[in-house]
Amino acid sequence: MTDMSLADLSARETARRVSAGEVTAEAVAAAFADRIAAAEPEVQAFAFFDRDRALAEAKAVPAGPLAGVTFGVKDVIDTVDMPTSYGSTVYEGHRPLWDAPSVALTRAFGGVVMGKTVTVEFAMKSPGKTRNPHNTAHTPGGSSSGSCAAVAAGMVQVAFGTQTAGSILRPSSYCGVVGYKPSFGTLNRAGVKPLSDTLDHLGLVTRDVRDAAFVTAALAERPELAQGSAPTAPRIGLFRTSRWAQAEPATRDALARAAAAIEAAGGTVRELEVPESFERLYALFDAVMGFETPRTLAYEHRVLGARISPITLDFIETLSQATRSDYDAALAALKDRDVLVEELLAGCDGLITPAAPGEAPVGLPTGDPVFNKPWTLLHVPALSVPAGVGPLGLPVGVQVIGRIGADAETLALAAFIEDALKAAA
Amino acid sequence: MTDMSLADLSARETARRVSAGEVTAEAVAAAFADRIAAAEPEVQAFAFFDRDRALAEAKAVPAGPLAGVTFGVKDVIDTVDMPTSYGSTVYEGHRPLWDAPSVALTRAFGGVVMGKTVTVEFAMKSPGKTRNPHNTAHTPGGSSSGSCAAVAAGMVQVAFGTQTAGSILRPSSYCGVVGYKPSFGTLNRAGVKPLSDTLDHLGLVTRDVRDAAFVTAALAERPELAQGSAPTAPRIGLFRTSRWAQAEPATRDALARAAAAIEAAGGTVRELEVPESFERLYALFDAVMGFETPRTLAYEHRVLGARISPITLDFIETLSQATRSDYDAALAALKDRDVLVEELLAGCDGLITPAAPGEAPVGLPTGDPVFNKPWTLLHVPALSVPAGVGPLGLPVGVQVIGRIGADAETLALAAFIEDALKAAA
Repeated sequence: MTDMSLADLSARETARRVSAGEVTAEAVAAAFADRIAAAEPEVQAFAFFDRDRALAEAKAVPAGPLAGVTFGVKDVIDTVDMPTSYGSTVYEGHRPLWDAPSVALTRAFGGVVMGKTVTVEFAMKSPGKTRNPHNTAHTPGGSSSGSCAAVAAGMVQVAFGTQTAGSILRPSSYCGVVGYKPSFGTLNRAGVKPLSDTLDHLGLVTRDVRDAAFVTAALAERPELAQGSAPTAPRIGLFRTSRWAQAEPATRDALARAAAAIEAAGGTVRELEVPESFERLYALFDAVMGFETPRTLAYEHRVLGARISPITLDFIETLSQATRSDYDAALAALKDRDVLVEELLAGCDGLITPAAPGEAPVGLPTGDPVFNKPWTLLHVPALSVPAGVGPLGLPVGVQVIGRIGADAETLALAAFIEDALKAAA
Repeated sequence: MTDMSLADLSARETARRVSAGEVTAEAVAAAFADRIAAAEPEVQAFAFFDRDRALAEAKAVPAGPLAGVTFGVKDVIDTVDMPTSYGSTVYEGHRPLWDAPSVALTRAFGGVVMGKTVTVEFAMKSPGKTRNPHNTAHTPGGSSSGSCAAVAAGMVQVAFGTQTAGSILRPSSYCGVVGYKPSFGTLNRAGVKPLSDTLDHLGLVTRDVRDAAFVTAALAERPELAQGSAPTAPRIGLFRTSRWAQAEPATRDALARAAAAIEAAGGTVRELEVPESFERLYALFDAVMGFETPRTLAYEHRVLGARISPITLDFIETLSQATRSDYDAALAALKDRDVLVEELLAGCDGLITPAAPGEAPVGLPTGDPVFNKPWTLLHVPALSVPAGVGPLGLPVGVQVIGRIGADAETLALAAFIEDALKAAA
């Protein structure tokens, strides 16, 4: 019999208590293992979980800033002691000879890896088995499906996700958890199955914004990330993007709720004009991912071919329309991202914008990353913050955007918005 | 009995003849296999070579722009059908489940991978077994030791190398071959053992500049790289760097020979002032590699520890002095590399600068990358072009530098300088 309430603790409170000797990492891990045992049959968030292995890891955990914090690791990230199949039957049972740096540092800093979370094949589009914990007839979204579902179901406190288009933010919105894609390069992405050198980001899924800040501060060795504070009266831009027609009522309502909550909490919200140039970011995104990804997956595409899933193969073929000259032109147009971002932020402290088109669709589709692609392309920090539920009773998030490298400020702003939404709920 | 003279053909002539059906890829591969059989006992350039496997690959080669061109693949690059140990005993016998994109594309485009070439452990400092083909008492340099030695000894036409500091250019200078580090991001580096996300480059070692241009044009799908032409009277800057005191007479003489040859061929050479800010690039380099590499190798450093070589471990420990704030400040200082490069080029079409401190040292040290680090940091295209021999009778190169992304122009300029040096010899 374990103390299940330990599984309600935040990551930061867990690290404090474990470091102070008030509770053992093993007891914390046991509480989460119980949660996994209870929820996994329905949610199926894990590609690999072995209770004994997880508890043994927790028992041997070193002291460190993440002492006793429980992690899920998306199965596109290499682990030496658990299989890593990148969501694909072609690599089933693969066992890397190393931990990715993100995993090695998590463990070195006291974190406990509970297991590997389900990913869409190669973090693209072909779904895994995971279901949305809020309604298992619906998708958790992808490609960080298992990571978002595991955090939403209380099975871990933190999960690694990866985002090339919208693979952290969108499923986080669907699952009612916080997804955080830091500024490009903040977290070391070696040992992550690559898709696009220009777009691949490593990020986190957590229960709240402060846990995302706390864990990233430790892993990126940037203590200031957990110490930022929002202005008392932040100026927020409401940015509908050039694809507002694709925002469903659930998403429109979530943004309206967030705007009202921000104003109630003392901030100001101003609707921003969408510059004509914004739509061009979609073409640039397609040129970059379209050139890079089919080459990065050259072996899977050209040699394994029919052995990978038809959805993945079709996605690669569709991407392959981009030419080298499209790509070179796109990289040239993106040379000074700071200038592009500054134009969009229009003097605001940050933006709120849709995190996903709406609630999680029925079935297991990954969902449309339409509201995430421009921000991933721009390398800005982006968070999905839960903002209530839609007409189906499923969670909907809002996406919070900041300036490149201003992750401390953006995390603080997202925490302000999260607090405001909770106060207004 | 094979036709050994086939092994004298350039890569571009080989591709032409094989594509025209004048010669088979298998006959070409057999000629190179004979060269390997003859030279390998002395040079020891290969981490893995199996004649039958290489000839079988050549027999099955598809049509393509690289038809029949023979390649060596540095053993930090993943191959599905040959072991990949990253130069380390800790990964001895490792067999990846995929080809790196560079290898998959080489094969898809008709190239023949003859074998894996020796690398220094993790492309850092702890030497392998390879010796300099010009004098086996001397080092080939590193970390692309086997790639440079294999091309120098005529065992392959092309070899992949990787460069984070000076691991392609310096050993190319020592071995009397052409080393080409393209602009950052030109060749897809997935499937290459990573050290530093900001500094890791994939590049090539070839017998002459036009082969480097030809092969890169195919692999990067940028035909213009093989079609650039130098101005008839190029304006070249002679750039001694702030570390000129470390340039030995052999290197000083090589630069003087190159300058005289350029002028004899109709170009102009102007000695440029070294801006005071240049020396700062060394500190920025150390901050970037110093922060990134120990984290990227977190598993090898923190978990394998004493099992990796003492030289590698010591190198990682030395690097580890860089802090996150050093790193963030360095990235900020490097935000607009084009401006930094333009200041150094001072209106010239390109620069000549030392490729290495001097001739290859005795023994097996990798050598000092002092003359390569700033250019790797700046992401510019850089080539080492052979420029005669030093007092020990060993080759010495000059480094040719161009603007970021101007690889076509830089390759054309390097070909002009190569021609000028050959004409003057």
